[in-house]
Amino acid sequence: MPVVTIQLLKGANRDQKAEIVRDITESLVRVLGKNPENTHVVFHEVEPESWGQGGLLVEARRGRRTIELG
Amino acid sequence: MPVVTIQLLKGANRDQKAEIVRDITESLVRVLGKNPENTHVVFHEVEPESWGQGGLLVEARRGRRTIELG
Amino acid sequence: MPVVTIQLLKGANRDQKAEIVRDITESLVRVLGKNPENTHVVFHEVEPESWGQGGLLVEARRGRRTIELG
Amino acid sequence: MPVVTIQLLKGANRDQKAEIVRDITESLVRVLGKNPENTHVVFHEVEPESWGQGGLLVEARRGRRTIELG
Amino acid sequence: MPVVTIQLLKGANRDQKAEIVRDITESLVRVLGKNPENTHVVFHEVEPESWGQGGLLVEARRGRRTIELG
Amino acid sequence: MPVVTIQLLKGANRDQKAEIVRDITESLVRVLGKNPENTHVVFHEVEPESWGQGGLLVEARRGRRTIELG
Repeated sequence: MPVVTIQLLKGANRDQKAEIVRDITESLVRVLGKNPENTHVVFHEVEPESWGQGGLLVEARRGRRTIELG
Repeated sequence: MPVVTIQLLKGANRDQKAEIVRDITESLVRVLGKNPENTHVVFHEVEPESWGQGGLLVEARRGRRTIELG
Repeated sequence: MPVVTIQLLKGANRDQKAEIVRDITESLVRVLGKNPENTHVVFHEVEPESWGQGGLLVEARRGRRTIELG
Repeated sequence: MPVVTIQLLKGANRDQKAEIVRDITESLVRVLGKNPENTHVVFHEVEPESWGQGGLLVEARRGRRTIELG
Repeated sequence: MPVVTIQLLKGANRDQKAEIVRDITESLVRVLGKNPENTHVVFHEVEPESWGQGGLLVEARRGRRTIELG
Repeated sequence: MPVVTIQLLKGANRDQKAEIVRDITESLVRVLGKNPENTHVVFHEVEPESWGQGGLLVEARRGRRTIELG
C-alpha cells in the first residue's frame, strides 16, 4: 500500500511523469515486494511563486541568479 | 484538531464534496468527540496525468482498458 | 483511488480507527462511486508537544486551561 | 532539511508568500540551526469549495455568515 | 527541489530504504534533470492498525485472510 | 485555516517547537490576517534512517562526512 507523493515545481510533461511512475513502482515492487496495484504515485506540481528555498521564493532565486550572471 | 487531507482524482462537484465533509466531520465528532470547529477536511484534486497506479498513469490505464474492452 | 490522510492527536484506539475507516470509505463509495479496494485511509498520530494551535503547543494550551479553571 | 508545507485558502499574493517564506526560514535557522539552503517552504493553495470546517465547505460558511449578518 | 514522501506500512529496513532512496533520486535526476542535493525522500512508516483499505484496518484484513485460508 | 506541516529530522525539543509555533503563527496572522485559533502547526519528526538526500540516507551522509573529515 505505499502512497508516494511527489511535490515538485511545475514543468514535468506526461511522458516524464509516466517514466517516474514506472521507476518508482518498479523499485517498491523489487525492493519491498509491494503489489503494484496497491502502489500509488501522486504528483503535486507547484508554481515557482509557491515554493521557497533559502528564504526566497524560487522565482526570486532565479531572477537573482540571472542578475548575478548577467 | 484533526486535519483530513483527501487526495483524489479531479471530478467531484461541490455538492459531493459538501456531503463528504459532512460525513467525515460527523464520524470524527461521534467516534472521537472532536470539536467540529477544529475539524478540517481538505481536498487535493489531481489530474489523471498526475496519478500513477500499477506502474502506469491513470490516464494510460483508462486508455488500455478501453482498448481491451474495444 | 482516494488516499485520505488524517493528522490527529494521539489517543484513538484500534476500534475507533476501524470505525472511522469504515465511515470514510462508506462515504467515498456512496458519494463518488469509488472502489473500496482503492480507498486508503492513513492515520498520522501526533503527540501534544508536536501540535500547535493559536500560537501555542496543545500541551501548553491544556496546562493553561487547567490553571484558568483551577 | 525541514520541508514546510502550508495548506491554505487561495488568496495570498506573491509578496505575502515571500514574506512568510522569509519568516519561517529565519525561525528554523535561528531556533534549530538549520541550513537555509536545505529549508523548503511549499504553499498548497485550496479553493473555498475544497476546504471544509465545522462540517461545511468554507464557501457555505461564508454564505451562512452573510445571511446571519444580513 | 522535489520532495518525495512515501507513506507505507512499517517493516522496511535500512538497506531497503537506502536502495529506494537511490532509485528514486536516480530517476528524478535522469528524467527531470533535478539536482540530487535538492532531492529529498522521506519515509512515513505506519502501523497496520493505522492504515485502512477496503473499509477495514490492514490488521483486520490480514486476520481475515488467515481465517479464509485456514 | 492554514495548516502548516513541518517534516524535519528528530531532535527538536519542546521549547524549540513552541518557539517555532509562535513564530509561524505570528507570521500568518500578521501577513495574511489569519485567525490564530484556526492556525495549526504540526511537526512530523523523522529518523535519520528515514530521510534521504542526494541519493543517500541522512544517516549514511553523516557517516561519510565523518570519514572524510577524520
